[in-house]
Amino acid sequence: MGDSSAVAIVSGGMDSVTLAHLLKDEGYDLHLLSVDYGQRHKKELAYAERCAERLRASFDVVDISAVGRLLSGSALTDDIEVPYGHYAEETMAVTVVPNRNAIMLSIAYGVAVAREAQVVAAAMHAGDHYVYPDCRPEFIEAFDAMQKKAVEGFGDPELHLYTPFVHKTKAQIVEVGASLGVPYEDTWSCYEGGEVHCGLCGTCTERKEAFELAGVPDLTVYRDREAAKAGR
Amino acid sequence: MGDSSAVAIVSGGMDSVTLAHLLKDEGYDLHLLSVDYGQRHKKELAYAERCAERLRASFDVVDISAVGRLLSGSALTDDIEVPYGHYAEETMAVTVVPNRNAIMLSIAYGVAVAREAQVVAAAMHAGDHYVYPDCRPEFIEAFDAMQKKAVEGFGDPELHLYTPFVHKTKAQIVEVGASLGVPYEDTWSCYEGGEVHCGLCGTCTERKEAFELAGVPDLTVYRDREAAKAGR
Repeated sequence: MGDSSAVAIVSGGMDSVTLAHLLKDEGYDLHLLSVDYGQRHKKELAYAERCAERLRASFDVVDISAVGRLLSGSALTDDIEVPYGHYAEETMAVTVVPNRNAIMLSIAYGVAVAREAQVVAAAMHAGDHYVYPDCRPEFIEAFDAMQKKAVEGFGDPELHLYTPFVHKTKAQIVEVGASLGVPYEDTWSCYEGGEVHCGLCGTCTERKEAFELAGVPDLTVYRDREAAKAGR
Repeated sequence: MGDSSAVAIVSGGMDSVTLAHLLKDEGYDLHLLSVDYGQRHKKELAYAERCAERLRASFDVVDISAVGRLLSGSALTDDIEVPYGHYAEETMAVTVVPNRNAIMLSIAYGVAVAREAQVVAAAMHAGDHYVYPDCRPEFIEAFDAMQKKAVEGFGDPELHLYTPFVHKTKAQIVEVGASLGVPYEDTWSCYEGGEVHCGLCGTCTERKEAFELAGVPDLTVYRDREAAKAGR
């Protein structure tokens, strides 16, 4: 790997923080990019920055909250109530910010061209395929093909999209992270963005399940473990 | 066409204003989207808004200047001197904001999904192919293919990219616009963003040439017609 450099989109959640640790382990010179699209769980961005400090990576937050405001109809940016339960339920479709990954990835490619990086890395995983078309392998392949046309002659000719988790479940990502020593207590998932994780929203539900399935201790502090267990 | 609606990326320059008039003429319900990526010629955005008012189109400016600040190395957003002459000269490559069209188009697609529009329209033209890979037909085709994957199941299933000028020269665009009665004096090209068009920078040079080649009177006020004629 040697001098290869990567621009990784890191939200501060478990998947993208694991991605950053994996890239570091693979020897990449790392730049972490957080995108503030006006999400309610802005708190996670602080965890992205801590990840960058921990891995001695350079770090930028890019504010595109004006875009988020335009893209109405999403519970992540609007005042619609955040639905509880699994993503794989139809009600969770409301948490989709239209075209979010294409927007974030195209910005990351701009940064990668400017930095002459070889890799844009993102943490899409198999668990997201059901609801989010822009997390699926077909999208990733088409995006990489588009970018090869978009920046032809600019930046590093080797520049490509790297999504090592695209066929992994969230539990398998936790297994990878545990083997790399990722401090998961220093990641943030909850869509509510409270003092501690709520334990009830879609991401909290999937977070807990991932640790359970991976057999990795969950050190997360949840606001209401009991209410969560009761399946509220 | 009837009830078809289009989101058009309009900068306030001649090409995109002509595009908006063409879409209106083709019967689209129009939403104009201007992207403020921190360009120095921000003045053009006011011309985009006037175009929207003229065509009774809805209008948004989306501020992604934070992205522009990240993408260093471009004379459009940095303090590098704007080069004079034609785009088709190598020195003009410095005016490229890395991946600009992919970023703007992916935002426009997000807006189009939220609005359930059938069309995202953009004004790339043949004269840009030389320097900008993200204006070429291969890019446009790859982008459309990517977007079909990215928003599958969201927005209007017919949503597609429409770039009617991709094989036209700037002069041919002016011919189209003249036949539609586009008021070109209400468009802005100059990269310097002064009181009137400088008449010397790359876009001014191409603007003047387009009117000449199209045989359409150029009502633009240039700061220094004489210096321009001397080919400075």
